[in-house]
Amino acid sequence: MPEKMEHDSTHLRLSEVNEALDSGMFVHVKRMLYQTPPCDIALLLESSPPACRKVLWRLTDSEMQGEILDELNEDAKTSILKMMDTESLVAATEGLDTDDLANILRSLPDSIYQEVITQMDTQDRQRLETAMAYPEDTAGSIMDTDTITLRPDVTVDVILRYIRLRGELPEATDTLYVVDKDDRLIGDVPLAMLLTTDPNSVIRTIMDREAETLPANMDTSEIAKLFERHDWISAPVIDDSGKLLGRITIDDVVDIIRENAEHDMMGMAGMDDDEDTFAPVMQSTKRRTLWLGVNLIAALTAASVSNMFEATLEQLATLAILMTIVPSMGGIAGNQTLALVIRGMAVGHINDDNSRWLIGKEAMVGALNGAIWAISIAIIVSLWKGDPSLGLIIGGAMFINMAMGGLAGVVIPLAMKKYNIDPALAGGMALTTVTDVVGLFAFLGMATLVYG
Amino acid sequence: MPEKMEHDSTHLRLSEVNEALDSGMFVHVKRMLYQTPPCDIALLLESSPPACRKVLWRLTDSEMQGEILDELNEDAKTSILKMMDTESLVAATEGLDTDDLANILRSLPDSIYQEVITQMDTQDRQRLETAMAYPEDTAGSIMDTDTITLRPDVTVDVILRYIRLRGELPEATDTLYVVDKDDRLIGDVPLAMLLTTDPNSVIRTIMDREAETLPANMDTSEIAKLFERHDWISAPVIDDSGKLLGRITIDDVVDIIRENAEHDMMGMAGMDDDEDTFAPVMQSTKRRTLWLGVNLIAALTAASVSNMFEATLEQLATLAILMTIVPSMGGIAGNQTLALVIRGMAVGHINDDNSRWLIGKEAMVGALNGAIWAISIAIIVSLWKGDPSLGLIIGGAMFINMAMGGLAGVVIPLAMKKYNIDPALAGGMALTTVTDVVGLFAFLGMATLVYG
Repeated sequence: MPEKMEHDSTHLRLSEVNEALDSGMFVHVKRMLYQTPPCDIALLLESSPPACRKVLWRLTDSEMQGEILDELNEDAKTSILKMMDTESLVAATEGLDTDDLANILRSLPDSIYQEVITQMDTQDRQRLETAMAYPEDTAGSIMDTDTITLRPDVTVDVILRYIRLRGELPEATDTLYVVDKDDRLIGDVPLAMLLTTDPNSVIRTIMDREAETLPANMDTSEIAKLFERHDWISAPVIDDSGKLLGRITIDDVVDIIRENAEHDMMGMAGMDDDEDTFAPVMQSTKRRTLWLGVNLIAALTAASVSNMFEATLEQLATLAILMTIVPSMGGIAGNQTLALVIRGMAVGHINDDNSRWLIGKEAMVGALNGAIWAISIAIIVSLWKGDPSLGLIIGGAMFINMAMGGLAGVVIPLAMKKYNIDPALAGGMALTTVTDVVGLFAFLGMATLVYG
Repeated sequence: MPEKMEHDSTHLRLSEVNEALDSGMFVHVKRMLYQTPPCDIALLLESSPPACRKVLWRLTDSEMQGEILDELNEDAKTSILKMMDTESLVAATEGLDTDDLANILRSLPDSIYQEVITQMDTQDRQRLETAMAYPEDTAGSIMDTDTITLRPDVTVDVILRYIRLRGELPEATDTLYVVDKDDRLIGDVPLAMLLTTDPNSVIRTIMDREAETLPANMDTSEIAKLFERHDWISAPVIDDSGKLLGRITIDDVVDIIRENAEHDMMGMAGMDDDEDTFAPVMQSTKRRTLWLGVNLIAALTAASVSNMFEATLEQLATLAILMTIVPSMGGIAGNQTLALVIRGMAVGHINDDNSRWLIGKEAMVGALNGAIWAISIAIIVSLWKGDPSLGLIIGGAMFINMAMGGLAGVVIPLAMKKYNIDPALAGGMALTTVTDVVGLFAFLGMATLVYG
């Protein structure tokens, strides 16, 4: 099975490469690297600690370096670009597609970027500057300008002969675009149709006039949703006047889908989705320290709530032992809701029409689960500490806090979205602060009323 | 801009639909639904609370219902399948691709499944049983059996004429497969090559013999990685003997990529990624309650640690106030690492060769950030509570716990993977338990030594 080999090959190679590097067999590694496709070398580089990554990069085929750079994730790419001088950068990026080239150049510091583009020929520079003119994360920035366009008044046969003469099609071409004399998109013709239709048909009569188009300033996450929903392979990008600018292909969209999903997952843990798995220690430390500082403030806020009940805590140490349970349960209940809402927002399920229903539902789910576990903890604490009123207090506090968790789990991300704050990043911390404060207030407050 | 309309249409429609339903304009809604593509109706259903969903489903075109069902997420699909009788199920699923049909039937209870397949004709039943023979989440279960195959000894011209005669190509066809007389895959020919090559060429001379193949039992998440890495549009599926069984297309892979990423994100919050955003209250409550119970046990474990230090807590209530800070910081530091490792595992960065380096690195990052925030909290507590030795104690405990968090954030998911436990689901809880226990032990233990 050829696949089996392919599938395990990276693992095999990484250990082989490590061994070979350890024993100084650079020529052997170099030969192996020359036979490995760029996407696999990119994975190998991403999976290598910094020192090993440096050596590997030096041994790669310089003609492949542009493609490898394009396949790398943001952080690994930056770490490698830092090692390269301008000259090798220019050499490496020659012959790349505009969108791939723009993707690499965006990661460069301004001064080096200027140097690189002055060393390019005029035509390449112009194409590049068009692509770079669109803000990152818009259709314009990821589109490929290499597109085959047709005029509506020719026949299929003419097109077929033209393609054969041309000798090749741009990558992932599944559709050709029909434009008028001002380059405005007026329809499209799938490749499959060229193959199945009568060669004498005129393009105008067979083209799809209702072709879906993407405006150049459309956000990439919207584009990803459209591709996902409609099972597209490619889609045309147009400007405000309807002029065809280029096309976006599914392979770029797959990267966006992966990145957006990673962003939510990493963001909820207080991480930057750009962070390289094998980044150097100092870089990772710096990236994460701010978030830990924010959490320290949140933890101190919770501590200052318990501080208000110092007198009660002095009287009854058991309260100190139990007081972490209520915030913990509220936090988990709220986080379950938060994850559901963040995913719902990402896939486009949640809007003004149904958010009220959702708030009610999630508060109810929190309250119901709150009731179940409130009763359990009331019984456990009554038996453990031999104090039924303490059991009632902790049960009551847990019920309140879990209902609050469910409610806050919807309201916080909805409110954040309204103010353009990323709920995946800030939602969890805000939520935990709410459930910590409410949980401690409810538990220690009721205890103070009873025992104080 | 036609796109603009398309993009906002679902939102528009949901509010329109709600209004129309509220005022009983069922005919109007029905007409709107008939003009809406299945993928948009699926999104509309997913975005609707249960009562509204039920009404909407009754109003959809029965001929579209199969396609709509296929587009729905797991939980919403199940909720709708429950409303349908066997007869309408058979009618709805007629004419679907085998993989789509299998996908729907997998969600049915066994008894109804049996009823549905007995009502199908023999050929359909056979095709279906082939697809259902492969376990869920393998190449065999998501492959499409509708594939065009060629023999190696014909010319391009013959193939072109055959395609024109056939009149259409299976969806997302970018490559035709070349098989020998025993149906074994021996090469492939991209559509683009048929269009660009000399029509008199014999297939054997132009086909790619090194075509990548997927074995039928290959895991779908491995398949997703290969598609992502190699920018494939489709890939052939073969059995153990190399026989071509079908092909997998990028649109199915996009769903897998999305689902896997969601699984990690939702799993880390203790959620099932199948959970429908608008599931009924009781269903959501039931789904989430177990995880909350597991957390209650974890919280009680932490409480039983503080219980061991009851005597010290009785002496000094300030300890109770501060004791939540250390576990919180360790938990966040550990969770940052955990998210990085879970993503790294998902994209295939982490293996036996580099995991030791990663353990060292993450423990170091935890320790460095631990040192930074330990010094800060030591100063804050010394000033707040006017007790420098208490500052030293909390700082020391925080340093220990954050280094432990970094270490446990790598070691726990690596160990879980070894024992086939899903780290995205169980990792967070295990990690928090470790950082809670270590944090409380370190803080209250040192405090007991000094003040006890």
